[in-house]
Amino acid sequence: MNDEAIAILGGTGDQGLGLALRFAKAGRPVVIGSRKEARAIAAADEVRKAVEGADVVGLENAEATAQAPVVILSVPFEHTASTVKGIRDALAPGQILVSMGVPLATAIGDGPVRTVGVWQGSCAELVASLAPNDVATVSAFQNVAAHRLQDLPHPVECDVLVSGPKEPRQRVMALCELVPGLRAIDGGPLANARIVEEITALLIGLNARYKVPEGLGWRLTGLPD
Amino acid sequence: MNDEAIAILGGTGDQGLGLALRFAKAGRPVVIGSRKEARAIAAADEVRKAVEGADVVGLENAEATAQAPVVILSVPFEHTASTVKGIRDALAPGQILVSMGVPLATAIGDGPVRTVGVWQGSCAELVASLAPNDVATVSAFQNVAAHRLQDLPHPVECDVLVSGPKEPRQRVMALCELVPGLRAIDGGPLANARIVEEITALLIGLNARYKVPEGLGWRLTGLPD
Repeated sequence: MNDEAIAILGGTGDQGLGLALRFAKAGRPVVIGSRKEARAIAAADEVRKAVEGADVVGLENAEATAQAPVVILSVPFEHTASTVKGIRDALAPGQILVSMGVPLATAIGDGPVRTVGVWQGSCAELVASLAPNDVATVSAFQNVAAHRLQDLPHPVECDVLVSGPKEPRQRVMALCELVPGLRAIDGGPLANARIVEEITALLIGLNARYKVPEGLGWRLTGLPD
Repeated sequence: MNDEAIAILGGTGDQGLGLALRFAKAGRPVVIGSRKEARAIAAADEVRKAVEGADVVGLENAEATAQAPVVILSVPFEHTASTVKGIRDALAPGQILVSMGVPLATAIGDGPVRTVGVWQGSCAELVASLAPNDVATVSAFQNVAAHRLQDLPHPVECDVLVSGPKEPRQRVMALCELVPGLRAIDGGPLANARIVEEITALLIGLNARYKVPEGLGWRLTGLPD
């Protein structure tokens, strides 16, 4: 396992691919995971085309999981539980799972401007409930628009609330800073993901209302430098 | 009833008083409401001391309600239902009730960084469920820090998500613009208050974590001019 590597499961989707592009551009080795290896390989090719010298591979999810200390889950909410169950045996003590999922109501055929309730409180807490006890779950990146991530020439003007256990949280906060424009905010305990996830549904509604297909972001005001 | 007047029930509290100061400073007649008239009068005196020429009176809640086309509810969450029930008969068709309450868990003796679930979905929807049918409920101002509102020499750097029925929503959005720094955002249907209210609990946690007693705010990024 390469200590610098970042695995992104569902790295074939819009937001996951966007993160893969940004981390590759920042010079980090990227491992794209997918349920189907062929799709992961195709996404890796895409990153290589967009980022000169990108160190990126595509693997099936469980194989990708074993390649990096930090594993980002970027799968549709309805595939979250099955994905975590599928990589459970591939996870090793000390690895960090990053939940960027949002329980959008699209999971039940309703629209993306609303959410469904999650028994555990949030997608991130669902992930934590299914992950091995010696693997920390951290919540991050939910409010970052896919289009802005993929638009490599421009910074992504957005704050990223990172919540979860302290030390893993700080490691994920450092990852945010690899992406120009992103600012990591200490979001405290994992349960705060309940609020951060909901903000995504609010932003999706605002994107439509204000006709911003590239996607809005948000920043805190009044923070000391 | 003065068409320009704004009533603020719970205008004796930190956030309500802050709004009263700002609207008075913007030259609007302000009616402060409280359960106890004497407290409302004292708060009105305070506004008059801080804002030269302020047109402000203090009245008992139901009396205050009858004085303005827009009635802002700025009471602790646990007093929301009783306050709305208490002013129900004083409300006239076409008036607008503005909910700025947040179901902070302080209502049940827990902390302000968490919320309690509201059957109707949010404090704003609770208000709407209790208000007469011919009175529109609009959600706004939840995320604006009391201290920043009261700090009259400085603008309040915060976006205000305003949600509710279209025409009343637009009227409340116009009120936001009376306060330097506040930017009104079209927050769509009232149910979006569920998310906006939660953001307050997140901000209260961040205020403590980042040691910003004055209170953080937030702004959308990527919005067209």
